Amino acid sequence: MSSYSPKLTRLIDALRRLPGVGPKSAQRMALHLLQRDREGAAFLARSVSEAMEGINQCPRTRMFCEPDHCGFCSARRDDTGQLCVVENPADLLAIESGTGYRGRYFVLMGRLSPLDGIGPEQLGLSLLIEQLSKGDVRELIIATNPTVEGEATAHYIAELAKARVVKVTRIAHGVPMGGELEYVDGGTLNHAFAGRQLL
Amino acid sequence: MSSYSPKLTRLIDALRRLPGVGPKSAQRMALHLLQRDREGAAFLARSVSEAMEGINQCPRTRMFCEPDHCGFCSARRDDTGQLCVVENPADLLAIESGTGYRGRYFVLMGRLSPLDGIGPEQLGLSLLIEQLSKGDVRELIIATNPTVEGEATAHYIAELAKARVVKVTRIAHGVPMGGELEYVDGGTLNHAFAGRQLL
Repeated sequence: MSSYSPKLTRLIDALRRLPGVGPKSAQRMALHLLQRDREGAAFLARSVSEAMEGINQCPRTRMFCEPDHCGFCSARRDDTGQLCVVENPADLLAIESGTGYRGRYFVLMGRLSPLDGIGPEQLGLSLLIEQLSKGDVRELIIATNPTVEGEATAHYIAELAKARVVKVTRIAHGVPMGGELEYVDGGTLNHAFAGRQLL
Repeated sequence: MSSYSPKLTRLIDALRRLPGVGPKSAQRMALHLLQRDREGAAFLARSVSEAMEGINQCPRTRMFCEPDHCGFCSARRDDTGQLCVVENPADLLAIESGTGYRGRYFVLMGRLSPLDGIGPEQLGLSLLIEQLSKGDVRELIIATNPTVEGEATAHYIAELAKARVVKVTRIAHGVPMGGELEYVDGGTLNHAFAGRQLL
């Protein structure tokens, strides 16, 4: 039985390393590039190389940035006195595009997960503490995900920060907009009740 | 509102050119490569470049192959006297891995579709006719897909080939193995009835 040529097999293997791509999708992608979009393939190869060479983590926010362009470090953001802690770059962008928040950020690049060997060190918490100790942050907003690990991380950071920052807050959890109570899970409903606010 | 840095944005755009990848998946892939698999990213960039440079269409089978490696051209395959016509490279591999067929192949790289500007010329049919005219093919097996366009293509090729080849066959269409008659569509059932065979 013959199969694809070595280079094509290698291309399919490489595409399978992308998250969410199985053998069938990888084959479809590889054949699509070869058959219909060789220009797109060249663009892809170039973009991947350039991104890996040119993108680093910002020493301050830990967000991905380029040497001459960190869109999330600016004096104007510092002036707000607010610092928002998120788990991932995608969470940062979701907040930036979905809310009016324009303060500073700190990206953990993960969450506390001792079983996977992810502790305070890996999340750069000493860097966060150092920034909080300077005294220019008046509010620390903790926006980790409402999962077990995200909550544990939030709790840990809150304990560390309380001695250094006037106000430590956590984003609200409750019934999502447009959701129907009937279909919302018990945990969320409990949170929504416990977090009820005066009108 | 800030967004990702230029190189990261370009990487996400490049990944979106892959079939079946939307904005959210592309973002997830890009961040995965940056955060967790820089080695895989280098492998991907290299594999894409090498594949685009090193893979061409075989002048005989029209399958993707490399200059020093066409797994589907061999004297042993020629000796079978059988030639199988398929629409795409993936179809070829499905036949090769799922059946015991070990004859020659001819890949159309598409199907007749006049509205999209795909005629006999684009499918390399003159090359196919040339090969059939040599007289060493005793059976032409047409294995295009059982879609409207695939059927039209099969019919067209059969008409061209009948004058040149002793035996022109079409793969059987009917109820798939493991399928239940109750859930099979009418068209398939009709085909299965019309193609019934003596036991």
